[in-house]
Amino acid sequence: MNPKLAAIEPSQIRAMAALKRPTSIDLGLGEPTLFPQQRFIDAAARETALRGMKYTLNAGTLELRTLIAQHYAYPGMSDARNVCITSGSEEAMYVAIKTLLDPERDEVLLIEPAYTAYAKIAQLEGIPVRTVGMPESTGFRYDPDAIVAAISPKTRLVIIGSPSNPTGRVITRAAAKQLADALLARPGEPVWVLDDELYRELTYVEDAGSLAELYPYTIAINGLSKSNALTGLRIGWTIAPAPLCDELSKVHAWIVTAANTFGQRVAHGIFTEPGALAEHAAWYRTQRTAVLAALRDSGLHFIEPDGAFYACVKLPHGTESIASAMRLVKEHDVVTIPGSIFGATLEGWLRLSWVAPIDAFREGLARIAGAVLV
Amino acid sequence: MNPKLAAIEPSQIRAMAALKRPTSIDLGLGEPTLFPQQRFIDAAARETALRGMKYTLNAGTLELRTLIAQHYAYPGMSDARNVCITSGSEEAMYVAIKTLLDPERDEVLLIEPAYTAYAKIAQLEGIPVRTVGMPESTGFRYDPDAIVAAISPKTRLVIIGSPSNPTGRVITRAAAKQLADALLARPGEPVWVLDDELYRELTYVEDAGSLAELYPYTIAINGLSKSNALTGLRIGWTIAPAPLCDELSKVHAWIVTAANTFGQRVAHGIFTEPGALAEHAAWYRTQRTAVLAALRDSGLHFIEPDGAFYACVKLPHGTESIASAMRLVKEHDVVTIPGSIFGATLEGWLRLSWVAPIDAFREGLARIAGAVLV
Repeated sequence: MNPKLAAIEPSQIRAMAALKRPTSIDLGLGEPTLFPQQRFIDAAARETALRGMKYTLNAGTLELRTLIAQHYAYPGMSDARNVCITSGSEEAMYVAIKTLLDPERDEVLLIEPAYTAYAKIAQLEGIPVRTVGMPESTGFRYDPDAIVAAISPKTRLVIIGSPSNPTGRVITRAAAKQLADALLARPGEPVWVLDDELYRELTYVEDAGSLAELYPYTIAINGLSKSNALTGLRIGWTIAPAPLCDELSKVHAWIVTAANTFGQRVAHGIFTEPGALAEHAAWYRTQRTAVLAALRDSGLHFIEPDGAFYACVKLPHGTESIASAMRLVKEHDVVTIPGSIFGATLEGWLRLSWVAPIDAFREGLARIAGAVLV
Repeated sequence: MNPKLAAIEPSQIRAMAALKRPTSIDLGLGEPTLFPQQRFIDAAARETALRGMKYTLNAGTLELRTLIAQHYAYPGMSDARNVCITSGSEEAMYVAIKTLLDPERDEVLLIEPAYTAYAKIAQLEGIPVRTVGMPESTGFRYDPDAIVAAISPKTRLVIIGSPSNPTGRVITRAAAKQLADALLARPGEPVWVLDDELYRELTYVEDAGSLAELYPYTIAINGLSKSNALTGLRIGWTIAPAPLCDELSKVHAWIVTAANTFGQRVAHGIFTEPGALAEHAAWYRTQRTAVLAALRDSGLHFIEPDGAFYACVKLPHGTESIASAMRLVKEHDVVTIPGSIFGATLEGWLRLSWVAPIDAFREGLARIAGAVLV
C-alpha cells in the first residue's frame, strides 16, 4: 500500500472510546446524547415516498445551499454558489485542506490545543504542519499576536476552531477583528482561514467573534452533527468565496459524488423552520450551569467553557494525560480523553464531555477527583 | 489553490446532463427511474425514533458488515473485518485507489472503455494512468491476454468494471479465470485488482465471472445505488483482505468519519430480507428485451448489453461523439453521453441509458437514428 498512509494512526479518541465497558461512565466521545427532532426525519421519509432517492447536484440541492447561505449571510458569501454540502464537517475539512494546499509548496498552521483531525488530514495529504500553542498561562484563549507571529512565508492556511474542541474557548469579537486586520495587513498572497464553526450553536458567551464575518479569505465549515444531535446524518458544509467554492465542489464530487439526499432533506426541514437549528441550545445552557457547579464542587482545576460541550480538567503537576486516562478507564471505569492528543499545551489535562446525564457527569468527576487529587 | 487540482475537469457526464431541458428525452445520466423500496426507508425512520442518529463505527456497523460479507462470501473475505461501508461506491473507489497506490512509485491500469471516475481519482491523487483499449473488433469484450500484456513493472492496480459502464460488457467465467491465473503466475509483488461490481445485480448473461471469487488480491466495490434505485442514499462498500481493509477503513475515517447511519439502516433492511437486493432486476430484464427490440428496429449498430442499463450505439464513420452529442441535445432535444469520454476505443459511439420509460427510449432512439443515419 501507499507507504505515506501506513504511518497514519487511527483516531485516539475512538481508541479510548473502544476501551469503554457496559458499566463505564463515558465522558469521552464527543456526541450528543439528545435525540434528533424526529419530525424532520419523518418528513424526509415522506418526501422519499413521493420523490425517490436520487442524486442531488454534486454541491447539494440549490434550495438547501440557498437556505444555508442566507442563514449565515457572511459578507460576499450569501448565495447558493458559496455553499457546498458535504458528507459531514469531516469531509468539508478534508476537501478544504486538500483543495487549498499544495503539499510541495505550502504548509498549514494549527492553533493548539486543536481538534485532532486537522493534523491527520494534513498528514494524509503530505502537507507540512506548523503549530502555535495557546498556553495555559492565558487560559488557552486565542491570541491574535501569537497566531500572526507564527505565520511563515510558506503558511497558506490557518485553522481555527471556535468554539474550540477541546478547550471550549471562543474567539472574542475583539480578537477576531485584530486577527482579521493583521492578516489583511500582511503583504503578498493572502493567508486563508479555515473557520471550524461546528459548535457555533452551542456558544454561551455574548462577545463571540467570527472570522467569516470579518475576513474575506475565509472558508467556514459547519454541520448538523452537534447542534441537532445528528452525528450519523453526515451533513456538513463549506461556505467560501464562489470561485474557491466551485473548486471545492469539484474535488468533493470526485471523492463522494454528493452528500446523501435523505440528510439534505432533513437539513432543508431544519433550515426552513425558524428556531429549529438552535432548538437544543437551551438544554446545553442548563446543563452547563449544572456542570460548572459540579466542577467547582470537585476541587479540580478546570477551563470554564465558552462554548461546545467539553470541560478540560487539570491533572496534578507532572502527570501524563495518556497514562492517567488509561488508568481512569481501567481502574475507575470512567472514559476521558487525554489532553496531549490535542497538542503539547494540553498535556497534563483531560478533556471531559458533558453530554451525559448530570448525575453520571458528577459521578465521573468524583471518580476522577478521587483518583488524581491527593 | 493546489495547482495539481486546478487542471481537473468536472464530470462531463454531469455537464451533458446540465444541458437537459424540461422537454428533453434524457438518455444521459446513469440513474434508475424506479422508486426505492419505501418499506426500508420507513423502517429506518422508525429505528431513528428509537435509537437516534449517532455515528456508527468508522467502517460501519458490525451487523451490516457481517451481512454484506456473508452475502457475497468471497474466499477469505467473508467476515465483517473484510468490509468497510463507504459514502457510496465513489468514495469506495477513491479510498481504494488512494490507499493502495503511491503516486511516486506506482501506476494504475485502466481497461477502456472505462467509467470516467477512475482516471479522475488517479489524477486527483497524482497517480500515473496507463490504459489498454478493448477494441470494437472484439466487441469491446474483456481480453485477459491484452490486459496482462499491458501491465508494466510499475502497475500495482488494474481496475475492471463488470458489468461495464459504459459498454454493458460482463467478464465471462473463462476470461476471469484466465486473468486471475495469469496474474497469479506473474513473479514479484502482486498486482491488485479493483473489481467494480456496482451493476452486478443487473446481469443478463449466465456465465458472468468474478475476480473477487478467483483472485486473492482483489478489492470488490459495490453499493445500493443502481440495484435498489438508491443513488442518493450514498451507501457503498469495499470488500478486501482484512489487513488492507483495516487500512482502507482508517483512510476512510479521516475523509468522512463514517457512512451515514440512516443509509446503513436501510442497507441492513435490504440485506436482511431475502430477495430485496435483487427485487428490481426483473424490471431491468423486461426492459432490456424491449430495448433490444427498439435498437434492432432503429437501424443503428449497437452493443448488446450483458449487464447494467446502458446501450452504446455507433455513429457514422468519422463522426466525433462529443460534437454529435451536443448537436443531438441542441437540435433534437435528446441527451446522450459521448463515447469518447470513456476512452479512445469508444470514440464514434454514444452511450444511451435505458432507464427511461420504453416509449421515451424509442422516441429518443428515433431522433438519434433520424439525425445520424443517411
